[in-house]
Order: sequence, then C-alpha cells, then structure tokens
Amino acid sequence: MALALEEARRAGALGEVPVGAVVVKDGKVVAAGHNRPRTAHDPTAHAEIVALREAAAVLGDERLAGCDLYVTLEPCTMCAGAISFARIRRLYYGASDPKGGAVESGVRFFDAPTCHHAPEVYGGIRESEAAELLRGFFAGRR
Amino acid sequence: MALALEEARRAGALGEVPVGAVVVKDGKVVAAGHNRPRTAHDPTAHAEIVALREAAAVLGDERLAGCDLYVTLEPCTMCAGAISFARIRRLYYGASDPKGGAVESGVRFFDAPTCHHAPEVYGGIRESEAAELLRGFFAGRR
Repeated sequence: MALALEEARRAGALGEVPVGAVVVKDGKVVAAGHNRPRTAHDPTAHAEIVALREAAAVLGDERLAGCDLYVTLEPCTMCAGAISFARIRRLYYGASDPKGGAVESGVRFFDAPTCHHAPEVYGGIRESEAAELLRGFFAGRR
Repeated sequence: MALALEEARRAGALGEVPVGAVVVKDGKVVAAGHNRPRTAHDPTAHAEIVALREAAAVLGDERLAGCDLYVTLEPCTMCAGAISFARIRRLYYGASDPKGGAVESGVRFFDAPTCHHAPEVYGGIRESEAAELLRGFFAGRR
C-alpha cells in the first residue's frame, strides 16, 4: 500500500485526482499505475485499470490468477468490473468513496448476481493517508 | 450498427466472443473496436473499451462530448462505467445480456446514484443479428 500511495502522489503531481494502484503476485510487484485520464486522454485510465492492463501484459494472460490488487481508493463501477474480469484474488483498498465507489458503496458490484468472480475484499488499509491525499488535492483546487 | 456487427464478426474470427462497437460523432465514425481480451492479454479489452479509448485518443480528450456509441451487446458493468466517464451522449445496443449486462440487467448502472453521467439508451437495435452471432459462436465451441 506504501507503493500505491506513492503512485497516488505521482497522479497528484500531474494534476490528476491522486489515486494509485499496485498488482502483487507471490510477494512481488507485477505492475503499478496511477490515475491519469486527463494526461493520457483516456477515460478508462484509472489507477486500477492502468495497473491491471500492465500486469496482464507482463504475465501474458488476461486472467491474473493469484494476483492481489492494492489501491488507495475504493474502486468505482468500471474498475470493480475490471477487477472481476481479471480474476484478482484479494483487493486491498484505502479510503471509501461513497459518491463513486462500487464495492461497499453504490452498486456493490461484487455482491451482484452478474458478478462472476469476486475477490476477497479488505477496505480501510492506510485509509487516513489515502483520504488526506485526496482532501489536500481537492482543497488546493478550490 | 452494421459496422459494429462487422467488428463483432472480426472478434469471432479471432476466437473471441463476437461483440463489436463503434463511436460516431456528427455522423462520422471516430473509432471502432472488437472484443479481444484473450488475444490482447487485456482483461479490459471489451469492444466498447477499445473503441472508447481509441476515440479519446483520436479526439485528444478523455470526454467524448457529442459522441454516440453503437455496440452489438448490452454493455457489462465495467463498460457501463467507462461509457459514463466518457460522457457518451447516446448508447445504441443490440442484444440484451441478462447474465452480464449492466444497463437493463444486473446493476443497471445508469440508474444508480453513483452514476454521474448517463447516456440516452436505445436497446434492441438489430438485436436478432447480434444475438445470432453470439449463439453461433457459443454453439460452435460446444
């Protein structure tokens, strides 16, 4: 999660909402990503999607069997869908996102009948640091 | 939708589930994509995501203002999220997908309070052709 927070800071430095994600397998980092839809001109370039795509490319498989995902913010609906398709084993996330999240908030996708693979979920990991990064970012833009 | 069906056939020829998508702006095709998670080693490479990412790259903007999306199958949860982030104006789709869809099925994301932009939705466009492609594909794999 320390690495994911570092990725989040990288996003913030680019003027992007500071969210970071890391994919880990067998205790090793496979891929990392930070949120960058504006700089990449890509509406799907959330931290999770960037990291999942990179991990799948590195492993040469669309299914990330045995991989865990660390992300600083509760995944949104799009990312929850991608996490399911990627067959992520465990999801660790930091801050909750009542306005846009889809794990404990919103559509709670992993509990839906149309979700065909759900990871084990652990929320609130280093939550205050992740939330503080986001608060600082939005306060600076006002 | 004829072009989207052509893209779907392209996916089927690659051994991928036959789904195709096209982004249109001002009556012109901006981008097209077919489903290819296996061949691309990318769990996010659904037809919609491929077409949305390409359109955003072409237009140099993460937001596809005034763009419409044609897709042969009801979008899944991941793709519904991406469609919302991309600010798609109108969504036209072919076959329904009760098992994996997220528009009229499943989490019905565009009706959720955590959905901050919903397109106008038109389902059932050339539905029988889109469904027949899918049926033929799955029958051939049994």
